[in-house]
Amino acid sequence: MTASGKYTIGFDLGGTKMMAALCDRDYRIVAREKKKTRPENGQDECFARMVTCVEELLEKSGVTADEIAALGVGAPGPLDHVNGVIRQTPNLGWSDFPIRDKFERELGIRTFLDNDVNLGTLGEFVFGAGKGGTNAIGIFVGTGIGGGLIIDGRLYHGHSGMAGEIGHMIVESDGFPCGCGGNGCLETVASRSIVSAVAWLMSLRGDAPHLLAETREAGEPIKSGALARAIKNGDGRVRELVEYAARRIGEAVATLVNVLSPDTVILGGGLVEAMPDVIVPEIKKTLDKKALRLLMEGVRVVAAELGDDAVAMGAAHMAQNGLSGSGGK
Amino acid sequence: MTASGKYTIGFDLGGTKMMAALCDRDYRIVAREKKKTRPENGQDECFARMVTCVEELLEKSGVTADEIAALGVGAPGPLDHVNGVIRQTPNLGWSDFPIRDKFERELGIRTFLDNDVNLGTLGEFVFGAGKGGTNAIGIFVGTGIGGGLIIDGRLYHGHSGMAGEIGHMIVESDGFPCGCGGNGCLETVASRSIVSAVAWLMSLRGDAPHLLAETREAGEPIKSGALARAIKNGDGRVRELVEYAARRIGEAVATLVNVLSPDTVILGGGLVEAMPDVIVPEIKKTLDKKALRLLMEGVRVVAAELGDDAVAMGAAHMAQNGLSGSGGK
Repeated sequence: MTASGKYTIGFDLGGTKMMAALCDRDYRIVAREKKKTRPENGQDECFARMVTCVEELLEKSGVTADEIAALGVGAPGPLDHVNGVIRQTPNLGWSDFPIRDKFERELGIRTFLDNDVNLGTLGEFVFGAGKGGTNAIGIFVGTGIGGGLIIDGRLYHGHSGMAGEIGHMIVESDGFPCGCGGNGCLETVASRSIVSAVAWLMSLRGDAPHLLAETREAGEPIKSGALARAIKNGDGRVRELVEYAARRIGEAVATLVNVLSPDTVILGGGLVEAMPDVIVPEIKKTLDKKALRLLMEGVRVVAAELGDDAVAMGAAHMAQNGLSGSGGK
Repeated sequence: MTASGKYTIGFDLGGTKMMAALCDRDYRIVAREKKKTRPENGQDECFARMVTCVEELLEKSGVTADEIAALGVGAPGPLDHVNGVIRQTPNLGWSDFPIRDKFERELGIRTFLDNDVNLGTLGEFVFGAGKGGTNAIGIFVGTGIGGGLIIDGRLYHGHSGMAGEIGHMIVESDGFPCGCGGNGCLETVASRSIVSAVAWLMSLRGDAPHLLAETREAGEPIKSGALARAIKNGDGRVRELVEYAARRIGEAVATLVNVLSPDTVILGGGLVEAMPDVIVPEIKKTLDKKALRLLMEGVRVVAAELGDDAVAMGAAHMAQNGLSGSGGK
């Protein structure tokens, strides 16, 4: 294992696809390799695909493992970032998988692991929409709502290593049951999952004709893109629904501003990225109304910029800084 | 000005009273001096009383200003802790008062300033109920609800310098108007102010006979002690009301645990300290139900221990560490 390699690899392990990105010293992505995750085949088979994915990335780039300083992996949580172990991932079905040690043994490359939402936040903070900040909050609205916290320029993990569960802020005292076992969490009023459930009701009831045309044959949760198209085509009630969710997210962000006083708020995830023009202004309006004025002074509220590269770039940055001893806290 | 003095002074400037405490090198309080604040006399007169308070403390202890390494002041916010300026204090009526420079000129003692709630949290964290933690949250429930955050062993101030406004977490999407100009803040459902307003209604309506007997002649908000006595004497509806407030605080703490993953939660302030046996168990029960299990593992939820000394002790600690360059961030 060498720490003097010219390149770093950032790996984004998602529930449906994986991507390995080869980054040069300036964190420019010089090559990408993607594969389906196929979690149904079990963790060993899936890990083998990850290794193949890295090997193929190296092969097609004409780079050897010796030239790689470090590998950073972003995976769905909960996980143990200190020891590099994936504890349990509901959407992968893995449990207690020592992915860091396995990668190091298999490839001979020093490896670091963190939560994908943390690394997406770090990627946007260092290279994307959040550049130039010091204390930042990343909020990613998709199936669930994930969050990452940057304190004094570094990812913050807290006591458990799992800080940043913004989707499980309690926003209704006696609200809908949540997937976490609690109830009234932010996810129960503002995730893409609940929005698409209510939108589905709307379409059944005849309130969303454009959406109905899109989803008639789907049989699964309505995607963010379909919601965005329905709004664009004139489904006013769907727009109201999405604006409602945005206001609830805005209230949660107001809470985070009042408690954490960040300088930067990064908004991302499928729902936001499918229609930033509908969601971001509504969040900003809510913040102006509900966050304390003195704490909102100079706060940037920005939409994520790096799309599918954010996690891999954050992972590459973590790996590089892990080596120099300034990261991985 | 000397940094080699044997003592430190911690100063707690409250809305109704002030206290200066002389601490030795081991932060033992060796003398205290108290005065009424009398904010109605204006900031210059009030500051003069603060100076007199310190001078009388020195005089009665037989200590000279040369023997004081530093003075730490805790004052109501919002304030600028970096430059030692009290910006505006609704309950003192001060504005843009450079208290640090004034003290240094007047007494020749190096001075540091921070928010009283922050210093109360720091005092409990270093010397009291929170000893031994790394990441802590302090919540103080009184007229309002104040909060302090300890991250990696140090007070966290955030971008604005005013982080920790836990009383202004948004817990109702369309709730009561709040003193901050917003609505639905935690203070509107769980502060001693709203609890005493509702308790007053109860007593008028005949639902709180013991409380009525206490408050008949008061003409001002019911105090925490009166609420505690009414509960002790059997006013069941008052107990229900306080338990409700405790549950709402518990939900807010659950949110903070899920976002910040602290190892220590310190509960204090007049309402909690008047009846910890009613409030603390209800908060713990709510946390067990609503915080994420993995993030609650190993979290201590403790009642503040230092009472009226907490702010002054935190202030003394800040002053000592400000001198050594490890505090005042």
